[in-house]
Amino acid sequence: MRITEVIVTPIAIPDVPLANTKGVHPSVFLRAVIEVKTDTGLVGLGEAYGAKRTLTGLQTVAPTLEGLDPYDLRDLRRRVEQALPNSGGVNAPTALADHKVIDVVYSAYEIALLDIRGKEVGRPLYDLLGGAVRKTIPFGGYLFYKFAKQDLTFGPDIMGEVMTPDTLVAQAREFAAEYGFKSWKLKGGVLHPDEEVETLLKLREVFPNDGLRIDPMGGWTVETSLKVIDQLGGTAGGVLEYLEDPVRGMDAMSELSAQTDLPLATNLVVVEFEQIIEAVKKDAVQIVLSDHHYWRGATGAVHLGEICRAAGLGVSMHSNSHLGISLAAMRHVAAATPNLTYDCDTHYPWSTKEIIKGGRPTFRNGTLQVPEGPGLGVELDHEAVAELHALYNNAMVKDRDDTDEMMKYIPDYVRKVPRW
Amino acid sequence: MRITEVIVTPIAIPDVPLANTKGVHPSVFLRAVIEVKTDTGLVGLGEAYGAKRTLTGLQTVAPTLEGLDPYDLRDLRRRVEQALPNSGGVNAPTALADHKVIDVVYSAYEIALLDIRGKEVGRPLYDLLGGAVRKTIPFGGYLFYKFAKQDLTFGPDIMGEVMTPDTLVAQAREFAAEYGFKSWKLKGGVLHPDEEVETLLKLREVFPNDGLRIDPMGGWTVETSLKVIDQLGGTAGGVLEYLEDPVRGMDAMSELSAQTDLPLATNLVVVEFEQIIEAVKKDAVQIVLSDHHYWRGATGAVHLGEICRAAGLGVSMHSNSHLGISLAAMRHVAAATPNLTYDCDTHYPWSTKEIIKGGRPTFRNGTLQVPEGPGLGVELDHEAVAELHALYNNAMVKDRDDTDEMMKYIPDYVRKVPRW
Ligand SMILES: [Mg+2]
Ligand SMILES: [Mg+2]
Repeated sequence: MRITEVIVTPIAIPDVPLANTKGVHPSVFLRAVIEVKTDTGLVGLGEAYGAKRTLTGLQTVAPTLEGLDPYDLRDLRRRVEQALPNSGGVNAPTALADHKVIDVVYSAYEIALLDIRGKEVGRPLYDLLGGAVRKTIPFGGYLFYKFAKQDLTFGPDIMGEVMTPDTLVAQAREFAAEYGFKSWKLKGGVLHPDEEVETLLKLREVFPNDGLRIDPMGGWTVETSLKVIDQLGGTAGGVLEYLEDPVRGMDAMSELSAQTDLPLATNLVVVEFEQIIEAVKKDAVQIVLSDHHYWRGATGAVHLGEICRAAGLGVSMHSNSHLGISLAAMRHVAAATPNLTYDCDTHYPWSTKEIIKGGRPTFRNGTLQVPEGPGLGVELDHEAVAELHALYNNAMVKDRDDTDEMMKYIPDYVRKVPRW
Repeated sequence: MRITEVIVTPIAIPDVPLANTKGVHPSVFLRAVIEVKTDTGLVGLGEAYGAKRTLTGLQTVAPTLEGLDPYDLRDLRRRVEQALPNSGGVNAPTALADHKVIDVVYSAYEIALLDIRGKEVGRPLYDLLGGAVRKTIPFGGYLFYKFAKQDLTFGPDIMGEVMTPDTLVAQAREFAAEYGFKSWKLKGGVLHPDEEVETLLKLREVFPNDGLRIDPMGGWTVETSLKVIDQLGGTAGGVLEYLEDPVRGMDAMSELSAQTDLPLATNLVVVEFEQIIEAVKKDAVQIVLSDHHYWRGATGAVHLGEICRAAGLGVSMHSNSHLGISLAAMRHVAAATPNLTYDCDTHYPWSTKEIIKGGRPTFRNGTLQVPEGPGLGVELDHEAVAELHALYNNAMVKDRDDTDEMMKYIPDYVRKVPRW
């Protein structure tokens, strides 16, 4: 079985102005849809970031995959590395979505190859990862402070302006009613920490039994973090199940970790296998966020789980804005990672589009079942892809810059990490 | 696809009196041959230890595997754990072959399940592990001090008495001529360290470009180890590529490691995933020996490779006395473990029997090719199995006790670790 053709289609999906420490989401988010075809008539699917560098990477690699055996992940890796010299490595100067291009491109194609393998043998993808430890995958509600959307050209707003504790709680109530989430993650580092603490305390009142997290994306100092932890009741019996990337950088995380028993999680200071050992030696984090989009695909994500188990670290799951191919892959990875014991993050409720046949799946009590069809268990809706590809061509947004977008709302905005 | 039947056949294979720190090999070594049958007519093979506790474990689990899906390794693990309560865990009091029964039994069946999966899809087993990074698998010559065999009832001797540096070098020359090995491992801790040093220095003269190792199995003190390292020229430009388990226990390994740059390897202080992090934190070892027989099968061995890569540890491969099913599985694991960069250990030249069709493979320049047939790529020779099963029934040896055997040669022998 050999690969004969690879199609990469950039798409744009209407987004809403969700705020974070870097700024705010632009009016569309970008994804790349991947179709990998074999000489046996199979098609493997993948979904990756769609911003410029990833897209260029995917497109550069695509023609070099002709003749690849879908079982040979080593050969995939070699081809990606050869097609993208100087693109990877933890020491590259720019931010995650840019510097990890090799891992990101490899990951996108790895999923498509596993999809092919699953389809060939008539098995769900989780079976290629050692089998499912769970088939009901719990997701958490991802809560954001946000502006009311100004430019409605590419799609409507969702839930209007949310810039206070009370409106954020109202947002959570809406999600609870529609999705039934049992845990909540607040994207923090946006308002003054006192207001974010107030928000969490109010969430705790409304959802007394749910897991709560906050992710300031490095927006706080160590001192601010310690104060927030104290305000939230510390560790034992406190409000948070974990605190995600409160401070910026491995050493600051380590410094904070030494002063609190509250578990620290990260998708910023540990994003490569080589960084895990440093984090362990410095006791900088206790939980690593898995994400098949950059942890070398589903196989890599499962390896990450085993490494974290051996290292005594917990595992949770990270999310960027995404659609249904990613949502399927996330569920297979979650099904096959025994120590992924936290509810997964997902941005999914923040868009309304879908590119897979059957449309958007329905969450029950915050959960989705892992797909049981062969491979990923999803099929592409080519009409829906065409519509969002047209939007990509119209939208003129070809890269993501949350800071730039922020200045449309706050003209004198200056990005500052840590801010508080 | 479901499992319908599991057959476990104990066999005995003529062995020769190879010496180590615990004593000497008995007149036969014991293995268990595993056949796992499916309702689709496939048969998966496995080969495990055959001593009493492993065999009992395999036999206890066998009937509980009926109905198991060969893709579902999680269900396999559950069934093994349920059938063997209180058998596993690093804190169990007895030695490796005994206390890791759950891992050992799981591992044996895991290989058989992967063999089934490979056969179903017409793919070599390495393809189920992510593909081959190498297809030519290098093995090292495994050198032993040994007695001349006294009791020839169950089979002839190989190479007579070897209890001096010169006869050991002669043993290596014979292996070099027949197998073409390019590296050598001496089972040490048997003679006085000065004689073992003399042996290694003579091996270095005869094979100036080959890798050399010694494995005293914890038989030395830290002081003795440091003296030996010094006698062998230290690290840079020294005689050894690594030193395997010179001292007994994690803390002694750590103490020694702090005083030398020579890499220390182990198959004694790191035998469970949970022990890796302790070894890293104490910098007790720099190389972990992989072995699919107890590192949770081929999947587990590949995970071990990824964990060691993340932890900055090297990987080599351990061997017990074995036949061709194990030899096939070892090659698939070696093919699919990128950072297994040392020649693999193997006891294979120390027996003359085989249980797979086609008989014993021929080594070329110390290497074997990874099998390219579906699954493990080997088929069972049922006549050969029947013959060795009859030997098992005749031999009356149902357990391995090297110390007991040693007293046949040296009646006042007292086991002592460390001895030197
Ligand atoms: Mg985060
Ligand atoms: Mg050893």
